[in-house]
Amino acid sequence: MARKIILDCDPGHDDAIAMLLAHGNPDVELVAVTTVVGNQTLEKVTRNALSVARIANITGVPFAAGCPRPLVRDIEVAHTIHGESGLDGPVLPEPVLELDGRHAVDLIIDTVMSHEPGEITIVPTAGLTNIALAVRKEPRIAERVREVVLMGGGYHTGNWSAVAEFNIKIDPEAAHIVFNERWPVTMVGLDLTHQALATPEVVRRIAAVGTRPAAFVNELLDFFGAMYLKEQGFEHPPVHDPCAVAYVIDPDVMTVRKAPVDIELTGTLTLGMTVADFRAPAPADCRTQVAVDLDHGRFWDLVVDALERIGEVPA
Amino acid sequence: MARKIILDCDPGHDDAIAMLLAHGNPDVELVAVTTVVGNQTLEKVTRNALSVARIANITGVPFAAGCPRPLVRDIEVAHTIHGESGLDGPVLPEPVLELDGRHAVDLIIDTVMSHEPGEITIVPTAGLTNIALAVRKEPRIAERVREVVLMGGGYHTGNWSAVAEFNIKIDPEAAHIVFNERWPVTMVGLDLTHQALATPEVVRRIAAVGTRPAAFVNELLDFFGAMYLKEQGFEHPPVHDPCAVAYVIDPDVMTVRKAPVDIELTGTLTLGMTVADFRAPAPADCRTQVAVDLDHGRFWDLVVDALERIGEVPA
Amino acid sequence: MARKIILDCDPGHDDAIAMLLAHGNPDVELVAVTTVVGNQTLEKVTRNALSVARIANITGVPFAAGCPRPLVRDIEVAHTIHGESGLDGPVLPEPVLELDGRHAVDLIIDTVMSHEPGEITIVPTAGLTNIALAVRKEPRIAERVREVVLMGGGYHTGNWSAVAEFNIKIDPEAAHIVFNERWPVTMVGLDLTHQALATPEVVRRIAAVGTRPAAFVNELLDFFGAMYLKEQGFEHPPVHDPCAVAYVIDPDVMTVRKAPVDIELTGTLTLGMTVADFRAPAPADCRTQVAVDLDHGRFWDLVVDALERIGEVPA
Amino acid sequence: MARKIILDCDPGHDDAIAMLLAHGNPDVELVAVTTVVGNQTLEKVTRNALSVARIANITGVPFAAGCPRPLVRDIEVAHTIHGESGLDGPVLPEPVLELDGRHAVDLIIDTVMSHEPGEITIVPTAGLTNIALAVRKEPRIAERVREVVLMGGGYHTGNWSAVAEFNIKIDPEAAHIVFNERWPVTMVGLDLTHQALATPEVVRRIAAVGTRPAAFVNELLDFFGAMYLKEQGFEHPPVHDPCAVAYVIDPDVMTVRKAPVDIELTGTLTLGMTVADFRAPAPADCRTQVAVDLDHGRFWDLVVDALERIGEVPA
Repeated sequence: MARKIILDCDPGHDDAIAMLLAHGNPDVELVAVTTVVGNQTLEKVTRNALSVARIANITGVPFAAGCPRPLVRDIEVAHTIHGESGLDGPVLPEPVLELDGRHAVDLIIDTVMSHEPGEITIVPTAGLTNIALAVRKEPRIAERVREVVLMGGGYHTGNWSAVAEFNIKIDPEAAHIVFNERWPVTMVGLDLTHQALATPEVVRRIAAVGTRPAAFVNELLDFFGAMYLKEQGFEHPPVHDPCAVAYVIDPDVMTVRKAPVDIELTGTLTLGMTVADFRAPAPADCRTQVAVDLDHGRFWDLVVDALERIGEVPA
Repeated sequence: MARKIILDCDPGHDDAIAMLLAHGNPDVELVAVTTVVGNQTLEKVTRNALSVARIANITGVPFAAGCPRPLVRDIEVAHTIHGESGLDGPVLPEPVLELDGRHAVDLIIDTVMSHEPGEITIVPTAGLTNIALAVRKEPRIAERVREVVLMGGGYHTGNWSAVAEFNIKIDPEAAHIVFNERWPVTMVGLDLTHQALATPEVVRRIAAVGTRPAAFVNELLDFFGAMYLKEQGFEHPPVHDPCAVAYVIDPDVMTVRKAPVDIELTGTLTLGMTVADFRAPAPADCRTQVAVDLDHGRFWDLVVDALERIGEVPA
Repeated sequence: MARKIILDCDPGHDDAIAMLLAHGNPDVELVAVTTVVGNQTLEKVTRNALSVARIANITGVPFAAGCPRPLVRDIEVAHTIHGESGLDGPVLPEPVLELDGRHAVDLIIDTVMSHEPGEITIVPTAGLTNIALAVRKEPRIAERVREVVLMGGGYHTGNWSAVAEFNIKIDPEAAHIVFNERWPVTMVGLDLTHQALATPEVVRRIAAVGTRPAAFVNELLDFFGAMYLKEQGFEHPPVHDPCAVAYVIDPDVMTVRKAPVDIELTGTLTLGMTVADFRAPAPADCRTQVAVDLDHGRFWDLVVDALERIGEVPA
Repeated sequence: MARKIILDCDPGHDDAIAMLLAHGNPDVELVAVTTVVGNQTLEKVTRNALSVARIANITGVPFAAGCPRPLVRDIEVAHTIHGESGLDGPVLPEPVLELDGRHAVDLIIDTVMSHEPGEITIVPTAGLTNIALAVRKEPRIAERVREVVLMGGGYHTGNWSAVAEFNIKIDPEAAHIVFNERWPVTMVGLDLTHQALATPEVVRRIAAVGTRPAAFVNELLDFFGAMYLKEQGFEHPPVHDPCAVAYVIDPDVMTVRKAPVDIELTGTLTLGMTVADFRAPAPADCRTQVAVDLDHGRFWDLVVDALERIGEVPA
C-alpha cells in the first residue's frame, strides 16, 4: 500500500522535483501539500507550489499556505540559490488549483488526526515552522504520525554557516521542537544530499523522457546548477529535497545511522547546527537517525521513473 | 464604552482575582478567557478557570484551553507558590461552564479578526505561548489588536531567577515573539506588582463585602500570602495579575514609562530577562512601555468595587 | 595607618581624579599604579598616567604598563567620552617618571606577595584584564589581598549597553574571573557613580583651591562634562573612578549592600551585565557587595581636601 | 638543523610518549617543557613530567609549572582516562630534575623572546591556558613564534561532548585566544589522532626495543588501552599527543588542510567546538590548518626510532 505523506515545502527548485517524485511514484501518496516561508516568501513559494501542481497535473490534493515567517528569527530567504521568484529559470504557468481554506498548520493537524495512527508520514523539505506549530497546537499528532522524514541539517556539513544548513538555520527553534518530539525523525541532511548530484548523465536521462514535466525539471536543474556553481562551487547541483521523498519510497536508497541529534540554539558560530552524537552506539530509545550514503543510481532511477509515470501533461 | 479584552491566564490565585476584577468592572468586557500551562498544568489551570467562572457567575463568555507546554523549553510549574492544584486554599466547585470547542489559539484569532481593528485588547497574565502561537498562525492580529497589556517580566526585579520573572522565563521564546510584534505592549512587571500588596487593611475591606466571591478572594489571599512569606519572604503577598486588568480599566492607576524592551534568549544568568533600555528617551516609534508606580489605594478600590458589583452568587 | 592600594587604571578623566584623590588623601597610600587598555589604547593611557603623575608631583611610586588588549574580545575604546588622547581637554605635560621595568601583572603580584596578607587593597578603575591575569598567574594573591574595590558594572544601570557598563563589557571574561575569586569585591557601579555629579557648586569649590592641579581637574571636568552631555544627556558629568578610592578612604561615604554578583558571558542583550541577586538576604559566605547611595557632599569634600593637601606643584 | 620546540603538556600517558618522541628524535630539540592543569591537577602532571624526564634521562632542559586552573571555567580533569595520578599504570620514579624558578608563562615568553624570530615552535598537548596567558602578557611572541602545532579539537569528532575535544573544552576561552592570534596554527585534532592507534603490532615493535623507556611506554599503553576500551569503546587506544610532535619532525607524516577554524564559546551543545569552515577554499591569509590523514606506519616508525635512539637508561 502506498505510504501517505504530507509534503511541507518551499518550492524551490529541489522542492519542485520532490513534488514530482512524490506525485509520480506509486509507492507514496500525496495527501496534502503545505507551504512555508523559506527559499522565498510564503506568497512566492505558495504560488510556485500551485504552478508545479499544474505542470505535473496534480489534482485532488489539498494545498495550504502556512507560516509567513519563522518562529523567533527574522525572515531569511535563499534568493542567491533560487532567484527572486524562488523558482527562477522555467516560465511558470498560472496556477489553476485553488488553495485549501485552512491554514497549513490546521491542514496538517486535520490530516494526521483523521487518519489512523501510523498512517501519515510528514516530509518537510523546508524550514520547520509549520510542523513545529502544528505539534505545539495539537500535541497528539506526535504519537499519531508514523515518522518525520525531513530534508535539512547535516552532521558534518553546513551551507548557511560553517556547520549549519539553510532549512534548520532559518528557524532553529522550530527545528528544536521537531527534533525533540516523540515521533521518529530521519534527517536527510547535506551529508547525504551533496551526493545527489544532477550529473550530465542524469540530465540526459531526464531529457530522454521527452515530456513537458521532464523538460521543466531540466530547466530547473539548469538554473539551479548555475547558481550552485557560482555560490558554492559545485560542478553539478545537489538536488536535496527529493532525497527525503526517495527514502520514504525506498529506505534502501540510502544508508542511515541511528544517533541522538539535537539543535544548537545559542551558539555564536554554531546556531542551527544539527548536533549528532556518534561517540557511542545510539541508546535503545533513540528516535533520530541520519542519512549517510546515497545509492546515486537507484535514487535517479526513482526520479526518472516518476517522470515517466507522470507522462505528458497538456500545456 | 467598555474595553473588550481577552484574558489569557493560568489560574493561579492572582489570575482568579484578575478574572473577578474583569468580570465585575463595567469598564472592561470579558469577550474570551483562554488558558495556558503555567502556574500548573493546562488541565489544572483550565479546570480552575471554569471553577472561578462558577464562583463569579461568569456566563456567556467562551473559555478555551490552549497550549499544554511552552514553545521550546520543558514545562516548569509554580507549585511552590500556587500549590498542587494551582489554586490551593479554597474548596473549588465543580465547573458548570463547558469549554469552547476551539483551541485557545483559534479563539484568540477568531475573536480578534471578528471585531473591528483596535477593538480587542489582549491581557495575558501567564506565559505567552498562546499569544505567540496566535500571532505566528495569523500575523494580521498584530495590527488588529488595540494593545497587549501583560503581567510579566520586570525591568529591575526577578523572581524566577535573579533578573527574570516566571511568566517570561517559562517561555522566553514566546515572550520574544510577543514583545517584538507590531502591537503596543504594556509590561506590568514585578517592579509594579510588588507594590500591589494585599495588606491586612485590604483583606478587611474585601471581607467587608460579605459575599461568597469576596470570601473566596480572601481564602485565595490567605494561602497565597503563606506561600509568599515562606518562599520569597514577603510580609504581604503581591497580587500581580489584576494589575494588568486594572491598567486597562484605568491607566491612571499606575505610571508607565516608554522604553525599548526585548527578551534575552541566550544568557546563562539572564535567560528570560525583560531587558529595558532606559539610557535615552524612547524613540518615537517605540511600541513598548513598562509600569512603574502603582496607586495602591486606587488599585484596591477597583478590586473591592468589582466584588461589590458581582454581589452575591448562589453556591 | 594609611591603607595601601594598587590603583589599576586607564586614564581617563575620572581615573586622573582618582589618582589625585589617592595621592592627596593621607588615609590611603599609593603603592603602585598600573595601566591597562580601556578608555584608550594602552600606550595612550600609560602616557596619560605618567603625565598626571607629573601634574600631581607623584614620585616614589612604581608605574607599570599592563595588557594592551582584553582577554577574549576585540579592543573597544571610549573615545566618544575621553577623546582621542584618552584625556582630551587639558594640555598634558611630558612625563618625567620612568615606567617600572615589570609588566603590570608582575608588579601587582610582586606588590601583593611582598606585603603582609591583608595589607594590599586593589582598586581597579578600568577593564579587569590585568587583575584577572595576575590572579590566574599567581592564584595566591586571591587570599593575600585585603579586598578589591572596583569601579565598574551596575546592578540596575548600564552605559555601554542597556544593562552593561563599559569597564565590565570590554572584558567580561576578566570580570568573571575577578568576581568569582575568593577575595572580597566591592562593586562601585553606575548606580552609585551616577550620583557623583560634578555640579557647578563642585566646580566652584575646586576652582577655589587655586592650584595648578585643581585647575587641571576643572579642565578635565569641562571636557568630560561636554562629552557626557552630548553622548548620554547628563547635565553634569558623573565622576566614576574616585568613588572607588573614596570608599577605601571612608566606607561611610556610601552605603553598600551585600549580594551575590556574577558576570553574564553569553547573553545576546546582556553580555557583561553584573547580575546581582537581591531576591533574598545574601548568604553568610557572600564575598560581593554593591555600592548603593553616595553621600555627595562628603565625597566631594574628600576630593577638595586631597587637592588642598597636594597644594601647588611647579609647572 | 633541529626544530626548537616548547612542549606545553599535562602528562598524561600520550603526553609522556610525546616527550619521549621529542627527546629521542634528532630533528626536534626540546628547549623547554611547561605544564598546565588538564589530564590531572597541575601538581600531579608537573610531577609526572619530571618523572618522565628521569625515565628518559632528559637533562639540561628547563621544566616549569604553569596554570593550576583554566581561565574562566572550573577545573575538569580526565581521571577516567588517565587515572588518579594522571599517569596510572607504570610505577613512576621520584623526579631528580628541579623545576625552573619561573612560571611557565614567563619561561615561554623568555624562551621565545630570547631566540630569533621564527626559531621557536610551540607544541601544546594540553589545555591552552599557559599559551593564552603568555600571548596576552607578551603579545610580541605571536609574531616571533614560528608556529603553534597543537593536539586538540577535531573538525568532525568530539570526545568530551558530541562535538568538542577535551583540551579545548576544558578552557575554550584560552583556545579562542590561541586560534585567533596572528601565528600559524596547525590543529592536530581527534580526526587525525583517532588514526594513531597503538595496535598489537605497534606494541610488539615497542617491546622489541628492549629498553626501560620502551617498557615504560608499553606500560602506559597497557593502562591507556584499558581505559579507552572501557570509556570510549576503542579496541586500541588512540595516542594523541605524539602526533603533534611528529608533525613538527616530519610534516609528511600526515596530510593537512587549510581552513578557517574558530572556537565556539556560547553554544549549549557545542561549547569548545573547533568550528572549521570547509565550504570554500581557505582564503589566502588563513593562518589555520587541520590535520586530516595519518601515515600510520611512518608515525610509529618515528616513535620506535626515538625509543631506539634514547636507548637504555639507568634505573
